[in-house]
Amino acid sequence: MENEETQIEQIKELLNEKKISDLRKLLDEKNSVDISVIFEDLSEELDKEKLLIAFRILSKEKAGEVFSYLSSEMQEKLIEHLTDTELKNVVNELYMDDKVDLLEEMPSNVVKRILRNVKKEDREIINEILKYPEDSAGSIMTTEFVDLKENMTVDEALNKVRKIGLDKETIYYCYVLTAKRTLVGIVDLKTLVISDESKQLKDLMETNVIKVNTLEDKENVAKMLSKYNFLAIPVVDNEEKLVGIVTVDDAIDVIQDEATEDLEKMAAIAPSEDTYFSTSTITHSRNRIVWLLILMLSSTITGGIITRYENAVAAVPLLVSFIPMIMGTGGNCGAQSSTLIIRGLATDEIKVRDILKVMWTEIRVAIVVGLALALLSGTFIMIVYKNTKLAITLGLTLLFTVMLSKFIGATLPLLAKKLKLDPALMASPIITTIVDTCSVLIFFTVATTIIL
Amino acid sequence: MENEETQIEQIKELLNEKKISDLRKLLDEKNSVDISVIFEDLSEELDKEKLLIAFRILSKEKAGEVFSYLSSEMQEKLIEHLTDTELKNVVNELYMDDKVDLLEEMPSNVVKRILRNVKKEDREIINEILKYPEDSAGSIMTTEFVDLKENMTVDEALNKVRKIGLDKETIYYCYVLTAKRTLVGIVDLKTLVISDESKQLKDLMETNVIKVNTLEDKENVAKMLSKYNFLAIPVVDNEEKLVGIVTVDDAIDVIQDEATEDLEKMAAIAPSEDTYFSTSTITHSRNRIVWLLILMLSSTITGGIITRYENAVAAVPLLVSFIPMIMGTGGNCGAQSSTLIIRGLATDEIKVRDILKVMWTEIRVAIVVGLALALLSGTFIMIVYKNTKLAITLGLTLLFTVMLSKFIGATLPLLAKKLKLDPALMASPIITTIVDTCSVLIFFTVATTIIL
Repeated sequence: MENEETQIEQIKELLNEKKISDLRKLLDEKNSVDISVIFEDLSEELDKEKLLIAFRILSKEKAGEVFSYLSSEMQEKLIEHLTDTELKNVVNELYMDDKVDLLEEMPSNVVKRILRNVKKEDREIINEILKYPEDSAGSIMTTEFVDLKENMTVDEALNKVRKIGLDKETIYYCYVLTAKRTLVGIVDLKTLVISDESKQLKDLMETNVIKVNTLEDKENVAKMLSKYNFLAIPVVDNEEKLVGIVTVDDAIDVIQDEATEDLEKMAAIAPSEDTYFSTSTITHSRNRIVWLLILMLSSTITGGIITRYENAVAAVPLLVSFIPMIMGTGGNCGAQSSTLIIRGLATDEIKVRDILKVMWTEIRVAIVVGLALALLSGTFIMIVYKNTKLAITLGLTLLFTVMLSKFIGATLPLLAKKLKLDPALMASPIITTIVDTCSVLIFFTVATTIIL
Repeated sequence: MENEETQIEQIKELLNEKKISDLRKLLDEKNSVDISVIFEDLSEELDKEKLLIAFRILSKEKAGEVFSYLSSEMQEKLIEHLTDTELKNVVNELYMDDKVDLLEEMPSNVVKRILRNVKKEDREIINEILKYPEDSAGSIMTTEFVDLKENMTVDEALNKVRKIGLDKETIYYCYVLTAKRTLVGIVDLKTLVISDESKQLKDLMETNVIKVNTLEDKENVAKMLSKYNFLAIPVVDNEEKLVGIVTVDDAIDVIQDEATEDLEKMAAIAPSEDTYFSTSTITHSRNRIVWLLILMLSSTITGGIITRYENAVAAVPLLVSFIPMIMGTGGNCGAQSSTLIIRGLATDEIKVRDILKVMWTEIRVAIVVGLALALLSGTFIMIVYKNTKLAITLGLTLLFTVMLSKFIGATLPLLAKKLKLDPALMASPIITTIVDTCSVLIFFTVATTIIL
């Protein structure tokens, strides 16, 4: 990290002193990802002209790579200052999936300018990809793969890889297609390199091809890549024709994004595609306020219940002081169960058909946890207030609350999944609100029965 | 999914009717990951002998692969029934990282039996790897990589890859070492395949090698693989000697596990390495009860505050009914902020040095959200109770509560990170408990000032 900062200082100095060849040498040695990070950091401190100088120093290939790693804000700023020729060079260096990503993020006037500078044959492919639904395999795939024929020999195949491989996103998996571009097999570069040169692909290729449809949810695509430890997975259309591949680096991004999205939903935030700092105050507020309002209104129900037991409160004012503890414990218990179930569903460890197995687990845990909390709080009350009835009331309330909250916390996410809703929506905040209401109701019912 | 179930039925039938050659044909065509899933499902329904028959049908290579994907419970059961020769075959087919994983999961008597059946040279390597700390790069790396010398030509390098590649976990990145095994460069198979056969590696290899130390936290290793879109990252010891590589499939597992662990911590569950169903009731209960107890005790403070304002409650009993709403809203607001910050820290979008930027964002959001909630709830009170003082009290309380909870929710995770603690521990439950106490205090302070 300190290293990064000294390098930024060094680059700033070289730019200020216009030591271009030294700067070129420095940047040439660096990884494109690191250069993009440095550019992002520099953009906050340097004027655009200087940054443009640094970008123009990069080789054509590296410029494309660095550009693909920049944030969309930075990409937009950069495009503004590039000439059409420069823009053409940069954009045509990008892989197809990065081209599509770029177009999706840019405002329409920039999109028009980019499309004008894209090769004609690419423009058609881009337009096809842009038609796929937002979260589909088609929308994240790239169309640059190596395609081979099944009657090719290993030698012929390797020659083709040598000829076309440089522009492909991965050459480690090669796809064997029929004349009609139907996918019939996969052969990896390892097999090609290791096998006898005269062998034919049809005798080497894996014919049990695991593939996805263009419309498959990108989350499932990422899960499959992870499950099978693939470096890429082929994407086929409804006629089984190969139209693209999704590579493992994109799958990791999807996995990270989905985890973030689930977390946001579980914290009652409307999930957003943007990063924390790139979201405006208004969007931040809107993403958070909807759920807050819903939860706020529903918590007035709990308030209503307390009002209904005004007499009990008037008779034993001490009762009120236990409400936070009961509500808190119920909410936390429910959140624990729902979180475990939601995560289990997300990672495919828990299936909807496991509902009885889950309930059985949660019931046993609830009994152990409930009894422990009941005993401890009862003892605590006896020591502090020396009031047996209050101790029994609190103990029983906690036992019932824990059992109920674990039950609700475990079943609601599974029910949501069964109804094809997102289980992550059934997380802490909703569970807490439901459990709050129930636990207060349990508390006053037990209290009026035992104490009054 | 239905497909999976009919296949399981089919395999069960073939096993029952002892149609071994049909079964072999069926399993031969399937992916090893799918076979392992089928075996897991079958193990619940079939007796061990039948399962053993199915496992013995597999080719040596496939048996090793399938075995590596099985759960540790199933691996243990299987090992019990394998002869020493069979065990030797299976274990020696495993990659080094899977061998180490297996040994880490098995009880000591099984470990002894496995080690007896492992090749002698492997045993030494395994013992070295087992010495690395639990979450380090060394503990998850594999030692099967392709090593080349810098004065080799492309032709010589490809010949070496052909000779030793079959047993390596990846041949797509090859590592260029000095005579003393110091890592000096990386050359990928793409470059080797595409380049002129007579060129020397030293002219082709990437010398700006991005690598990790054996002791680096595995979470950082996974983040680096994802950041640079690598398929593998080299692991070096303190003398810069290459000792292993971490491949991208293992990085994905680490990313998934870390997300689960963060979620569990954020829901006040002690994180565990085991999956939901493989955890016992007692462990489940213990993982959950510690935090419940801490939070339960701390929520008695909130109860204490309510007791302190007994007079206010006696004068305006209605006040009590708003406690759930205020506590709930405060808790939810704090959870929203802390979740966003914790996730931002986990994905490296937010750094500790961004603390002022984060605070500024949260303050603006808090003002917008707080004002909106205050106005809405004030209006609601005016309509329902026609009580101006109560409306002002509630509005002001909500405004202050939202601002405070967003402040606490945003700063505590950053503080934790600064103190080198885990930010995920500063999540919803702790924040909620702190905010609960504060919000009730704010409420009664405002109420006694305005109403009484």
